Amino acid sequence: MNILATRLTRTLRLRHPIVSAPMAFAGGGALAAAVSRAGGLGLIGGGYGDPAWLEQQFAAAAGERVGVGFITWSLRKSPSLLTDVLKHRPAAVMLSFGDPRPFVDEIRAAGAALVCQCQDMAHVMDAVDVGADIVVAQGAEAGGHGALRGTLGFVPEVADHLAQHAPATLLLAAGGIGDGRGLAAALMLGADGVLVGTRLWASREALAKEGHHRAILETDGDGTLRTRIPDIARQIPWPRGFTARIRRNAFTDRWHGREEALEAAVATEGPRYRQAFEAGDPEQAGVWFGEAAGLVHAIEPAAVIVERMAAEAAARLRFHGGASLEPSSDGDRR
Amino acid sequence: MNILATRLTRTLRLRHPIVSAPMAFAGGGALAAAVSRAGGLGLIGGGYGDPAWLEQQFAAAAGERVGVGFITWSLRKSPSLLTDVLKHRPAAVMLSFGDPRPFVDEIRAAGAALVCQCQDMAHVMDAVDVGADIVVAQGAEAGGHGALRGTLGFVPEVADHLAQHAPATLLLAAGGIGDGRGLAAALMLGADGVLVGTRLWASREALAKEGHHRAILETDGDGTLRTRIPDIARQIPWPRGFTARIRRNAFTDRWHGREEALEAAVATEGPRYRQAFEAGDPEQAGVWFGEAAGLVHAIEPAAVIVERMAAEAAARLRFHGGASLEPSSDGDRR
Repeated sequence: MNILATRLTRTLRLRHPIVSAPMAFAGGGALAAAVSRAGGLGLIGGGYGDPAWLEQQFAAAAGERVGVGFITWSLRKSPSLLTDVLKHRPAAVMLSFGDPRPFVDEIRAAGAALVCQCQDMAHVMDAVDVGADIVVAQGAEAGGHGALRGTLGFVPEVADHLAQHAPATLLLAAGGIGDGRGLAAALMLGADGVLVGTRLWASREALAKEGHHRAILETDGDGTLRTRIPDIARQIPWPRGFTARIRRNAFTDRWHGREEALEAAVATEGPRYRQAFEAGDPEQAGVWFGEAAGLVHAIEPAAVIVERMAAEAAARLRFHGGASLEPSSDGDRR
Repeated sequence: MNILATRLTRTLRLRHPIVSAPMAFAGGGALAAAVSRAGGLGLIGGGYGDPAWLEQQFAAAAGERVGVGFITWSLRKSPSLLTDVLKHRPAAVMLSFGDPRPFVDEIRAAGAALVCQCQDMAHVMDAVDVGADIVVAQGAEAGGHGALRGTLGFVPEVADHLAQHAPATLLLAAGGIGDGRGLAAALMLGADGVLVGTRLWASREALAKEGHHRAILETDGDGTLRTRIPDIARQIPWPRGFTARIRRNAFTDRWHGREEALEAAVATEGPRYRQAFEAGDPEQAGVWFGEAAGLVHAIEPAAVIVERMAAEAAARLRFHGGASLEPSSDGDRR
């Protein structure tokens, strides 16, 4: 049942206005397919571009209609990745963190929707300039890489810009959206749907380590921070202006604010980070989730998360569209 | 007409679920009274505690029912200020940035609603512990002092905490809320109303300098940052963990990231800052507004702002409560 019809659900033929974030490493084919089967659109995380891994993930999606997302500055180093991936006929290709221009024509020619994720108004102007089909306004609350604007003020400002300069372009809100309240709020702000990372990272289908999944259940929304240190430890040359939101833990306590010392120690700290990450150690490596952690209380199937988010948003919108804005008598605000 | 009835409007007997932020220096009696007359609740900004200024502002409120807000750690240095202000029988007293405990009994005894503004979950637990009547969940988007949580993920997490531990406590959302879309979103997130700073700072009644008012009209939501430098320049000993969101300008370009150098130069830079601020110079001093600057296109009477915000939120909620989430055919998302 299509309980929340928006321009996004109509344009992409979805049941729910919910797209999964293409999370590097965690957003594989199983998660993307599960989100799409549940009525949203799943995006495989192209990450830093491992062709064999990407082939595996499209195979895992088992023919389900999914999309894919890339880290734009990284994709420039191996543009053939895009060509390979387009053979799978993704429904959408999302570009984030860098100039989309080199890839736009190839994406269009393949018939995929062009999605540009934006962290500030300058990015939005670039996205309009290249004729993006969908703009994602990503706020600083988001897990993983991002920048500084808060979702709540950024989304309506982007909506105004699109209304004036590209009224056919759709808008997704991202960052801090963990349940149906966030989805309903995003629609109020002028978005046509949401891009969900953290909440779907905390799903059974996500390729997150078991120790990291346990950690999110013990972490409230205060328990994350934005930092450059995982990129320093991994020696990944992220452009200035983008930081990673990860869990506060022993690794961040030790190195955040001591970036130069970490750079100097990277010969030992780099391998230590990678080993801890692979082992699912929740303390000695980056644990990649955002402020919506405070809204996550169980690791659940992605379909349960997507369907509950849509139903909860629809219920809130119908309820508040009526005469009363009172919560129910037991004080429950959900 | 009460077009958006919530627990807040009923409890405080308001027409609109909108409270003005008690902005230091800018939030005087004229603004507070205008907001209250328009159907919200205006709060005078107690700031750093100038008794003569506060008396003037209560006089300017001219008997209108208003409240007042204090910087809690600063109030501890001159607690008699609270005693003096309570003689004016404020409808509400808001405490922010510090332990509310020393002031709670006196506020309650005066019959004022106790409002605790919170920037993280630890603050919320303190507010519940002292039995706050109203909790404000302030996100990092807010202008002036604040902290790190984004409004969109923080508000529902606070709503859940209150539902479980203090269901009678009301919740206001603050940070990034510049129009009716933000108000509608806040209600979707579980808030009972909003606390509005930046948008009302950009009102005719606010005590903002003319040059600073001109600056907000030229600044989009990307054009602010969080920094310690105005507090260093003014030698105001803000506790660690709180920073000020101000406009990016020549002052922030010069000193942000060079905090130690500014400290060393404060004998000359301090007076220069204060002089530039008094002159309304938009480049050489802090210009105090938040990310909602991107939603501000005119300096207007506070009543116009409050009434439009409420009407726009009500219209969006009614519209979206129906069957369609399509924007109108001209692409306008407002």
